[in-house]
Amino acid sequence: MAANEERTWKARLHEIIFESNTKAGRLFDIALLVAIVASIVIVMADSVATLHLQHGQLFYRLEWAFTILFTIEFILRLISVKSPAHYLASFLGIIDLLSIVPTYLSVFYIGAQSLLVLRALRLLRIFRIFKLSYFIAEMKFLGVAISSSLRKISIFMFFVFTLVIILGSVMYLVERGQNGFSSIPDSIYWAIVTITTVGYGDISPVTPLGKFVASIIMLLGYGIIAVPTGIVTTEMAMAARSKLQKHEACPNCGREGHDDDAVFCKYCSSRL
Amino acid sequence: MAANEERTWKARLHEIIFESNTKAGRLFDIALLVAIVASIVIVMADSVATLHLQHGQLFYRLEWAFTILFTIEFILRLISVKSPAHYLASFLGIIDLLSIVPTYLSVFYIGAQSLLVLRALRLLRIFRIFKLSYFIAEMKFLGVAISSSLRKISIFMFFVFTLVIILGSVMYLVERGQNGFSSIPDSIYWAIVTITTVGYGDISPVTPLGKFVASIIMLLGYGIIAVPTGIVTTEMAMAARSKLQKHEACPNCGREGHDDDAVFCKYCSSRL
Amino acid sequence: MAANEERTWKARLHEIIFESNTKAGRLFDIALLVAIVASIVIVMADSVATLHLQHGQLFYRLEWAFTILFTIEFILRLISVKSPAHYLASFLGIIDLLSIVPTYLSVFYIGAQSLLVLRALRLLRIFRIFKLSYFIAEMKFLGVAISSSLRKISIFMFFVFTLVIILGSVMYLVERGQNGFSSIPDSIYWAIVTITTVGYGDISPVTPLGKFVASIIMLLGYGIIAVPTGIVTTEMAMAARSKLQKHEACPNCGREGHDDDAVFCKYCSSRL
Amino acid sequence: MAANEERTWKARLHEIIFESNTKAGRLFDIALLVAIVASIVIVMADSVATLHLQHGQLFYRLEWAFTILFTIEFILRLISVKSPAHYLASFLGIIDLLSIVPTYLSVFYIGAQSLLVLRALRLLRIFRIFKLSYFIAEMKFLGVAISSSLRKISIFMFFVFTLVIILGSVMYLVERGQNGFSSIPDSIYWAIVTITTVGYGDISPVTPLGKFVASIIMLLGYGIIAVPTGIVTTEMAMAARSKLQKHEACPNCGREGHDDDAVFCKYCSSRL
Repeated sequence: MAANEERTWKARLHEIIFESNTKAGRLFDIALLVAIVASIVIVMADSVATLHLQHGQLFYRLEWAFTILFTIEFILRLISVKSPAHYLASFLGIIDLLSIVPTYLSVFYIGAQSLLVLRALRLLRIFRIFKLSYFIAEMKFLGVAISSSLRKISIFMFFVFTLVIILGSVMYLVERGQNGFSSIPDSIYWAIVTITTVGYGDISPVTPLGKFVASIIMLLGYGIIAVPTGIVTTEMAMAARSKLQKHEACPNCGREGHDDDAVFCKYCSSRL
Repeated sequence: MAANEERTWKARLHEIIFESNTKAGRLFDIALLVAIVASIVIVMADSVATLHLQHGQLFYRLEWAFTILFTIEFILRLISVKSPAHYLASFLGIIDLLSIVPTYLSVFYIGAQSLLVLRALRLLRIFRIFKLSYFIAEMKFLGVAISSSLRKISIFMFFVFTLVIILGSVMYLVERGQNGFSSIPDSIYWAIVTITTVGYGDISPVTPLGKFVASIIMLLGYGIIAVPTGIVTTEMAMAARSKLQKHEACPNCGREGHDDDAVFCKYCSSRL
Repeated sequence: MAANEERTWKARLHEIIFESNTKAGRLFDIALLVAIVASIVIVMADSVATLHLQHGQLFYRLEWAFTILFTIEFILRLISVKSPAHYLASFLGIIDLLSIVPTYLSVFYIGAQSLLVLRALRLLRIFRIFKLSYFIAEMKFLGVAISSSLRKISIFMFFVFTLVIILGSVMYLVERGQNGFSSIPDSIYWAIVTITTVGYGDISPVTPLGKFVASIIMLLGYGIIAVPTGIVTTEMAMAARSKLQKHEACPNCGREGHDDDAVFCKYCSSRL
Repeated sequence: MAANEERTWKARLHEIIFESNTKAGRLFDIALLVAIVASIVIVMADSVATLHLQHGQLFYRLEWAFTILFTIEFILRLISVKSPAHYLASFLGIIDLLSIVPTYLSVFYIGAQSLLVLRALRLLRIFRIFKLSYFIAEMKFLGVAISSSLRKISIFMFFVFTLVIILGSVMYLVERGQNGFSSIPDSIYWAIVTITTVGYGDISPVTPLGKFVASIIMLLGYGIIAVPTGIVTTEMAMAARSKLQKHEACPNCGREGHDDDAVFCKYCSSRL
């Protein structure tokens, strides 16, 4: 009887903390999200010197208050979940843990509380709350397209990586270690800044030859930036097309390519 | 008889102000557009210190002249329209109101007249004037593609938002609050400047580790910038393809959306 | 007889100057191209202060030599062409004229010779020389895709134009005319620099609110830069697809979508 | 017998050095890769002034050690390969040679060892080691798409080239050789920095007219950057689609390249 009661109590807790289809669960999720946003804002505000001088003491207390709150939430999650080990090893479990540890660490290592911004990752819970099926579908779509692009993009990134080493070194030689190109690593940093079209301007070529080589690198970067875009777009187009089409062939004529909402074969009119 | 006359007078006014298929209506629209452009140019010119010193008095008078002109136009619109409330609540109605209010506000709050640049939104009326059917079709096409991209892009933006908070905080820790990375919000600002490839260079990493992390963020930004482009392109390609579909409805069930190569209706199997 | 001889002489001249399928014509074209490149290089070199001091006299003479050369060429073109008026009004004719006029103008207006760089446009003649059919096909392909994108892009540009006026003015108000945002036109310039992701950094927000608004503008620019890319890509994909397909339907089953090299219908096997 | 033994010895060596499907071959490849990375890191570290002062002597010795190691490897490759001339003329052979020559050259020309970063190209061997068939397929896919884009992109680049000459010269005239636009080549460099959206900010327009012209160039660059992306994306989409085509040949005429929905061979009309 007591065991049964405990099970019920745990099940209720699980429902509130992990689900969001009951009113209590939904309320808990929204309260949690507000707390996450508030705690992130405080960590940010505390990093601003003027605000830290004025309200440092307040921020310190609020930080601890949120950490204790999230610690209680974390313990409740551990209690209510079926397999605590499984939860601890999950992506969300690790994030939940990472979002409370820094405050405790800050007792021993000053400055560790800056890691609290990892709490920002908890914001991703928002998708769990607004569990609208459509959003989930869109996310899956983006996920499929991006993950199937990853291998192509990683090959591409390796080429870019090799390229910026060469280009950076060439510029180091051309500018003879002057004008910010003071070492090969610095010149590689410049090559990355240039080829990604970020262009801070903290390092920029000064000699005529340097400007000439830089111009070629920039025009090269023009073509290069097109490649990842091309990869992602192609994968998305493929994902979009396959989503729109039935994956079954016509039982009569055997042809494929029917729309998702087709009832009859568009080629031979037999029922699909 | 008088009521009838009034109705006719109102109808004429409506025709001139709201329509552009009569000669008078077209003339009114072009005159209005010229007045809008002129008033925007004056607000801009007045913000330039040297021009303000020389012609400030003239600009002030012209500003009031245009405001009174637009106020009269606004009142005429309110009179001639069937449902003034409906017009006031519409997008164009709000813009029309916003483009006159700042001048009156400037009597009480100095500087409010800078808001007059909201008049720029009135420039969008240009599409109403050049009511060429083709332009409308193109705009609809762009509108459909962009609005159906919005949900995907907003999910993507949320991820980018979370990412820049994390990345900004990491750089704040790496550069130890020095070299412009003086607070987490400032570092997040830097992360946004970097990942969007804008790269002002007002804040840029100085330490070797900072440059290394920044390089990784930039290469990451390479792949990330491909995503919104991929989304928009895919939606446009889909919109373009649906334009390619048969524009004829099924003669039996009347439904549309058949592929170009369809022979039989995919809904009811009758021959197209 | 004399008239006939003149016609022949003119025809030969036309062949050499305008055609490139004879050996003499090809040689003329290559010599012309070399002269164009040389004259552009001289104009550029003359603009460099140190080179101008050293070789200014030489550059001056060479400039006149090339101008006289191109003037003779221009007169020969006028003589040998059937309709001189038609040639003068053509794109290439205007460029040919523009590439000699500045030197003569420089006698009256010092500095006019800088316009000589318009000669660079004559470089486009290169495509006439390397009249390889494949290149022409590729250029036509690019031309079709770009010209059919132009209307969509011009609508898009108009929206961007309105947007940067609004955004620039907002930043002018936010930064209160300080930190480089000294007037609305300057702020609009900043908005364009930001939204196109160029990001010089000559003007950048300093106040916290300014940085916040700028961050939103940059993320907005993220989505906006995707639009022209999406437009051009879609048009190119459509042009590429239509190039690959026969535009005729099968005479037996009436279906379309056959490849360019298809001999038999892929649906019903009858000869196309 | 001796000759046979030599052949076997050579064949074994070839297997270890050139193949990676035996355990020894794989180990050799990994050891080589580690050596390449280590030698590149040393060249980079040596270019950093502070590290050079501290460990310059050590770096110098390690550089020579790696060069001797790679020289031995190079000689072994020459011995074990069937046709040494063929290997020397191959892409990988040239890179292997270029990665040892600079150290020897540095005896005569100080500074030549900076060219050692060309060793970075040897990193491309990584693809030979992780000879996973999938990676190869992806690389081929990228290779096909990019190489078939090259001709279109080179035409495009030629137009951009002409454009930046014109635009740079216009800005030189507009800014009257001031504010960094000190010569036409410098102004062309600025035009490239701007149109590729890199935007260092080392040169930026100062006069109102200059800012106006620059704004137009930036908005122009908006459309221009879309073109290479469009080209690459279209080619990738075509390559992806051709991968979707039936991979079976016609049983009658043996030709391939049939659409996914083809029932009859488009060349000879026999049933597929």
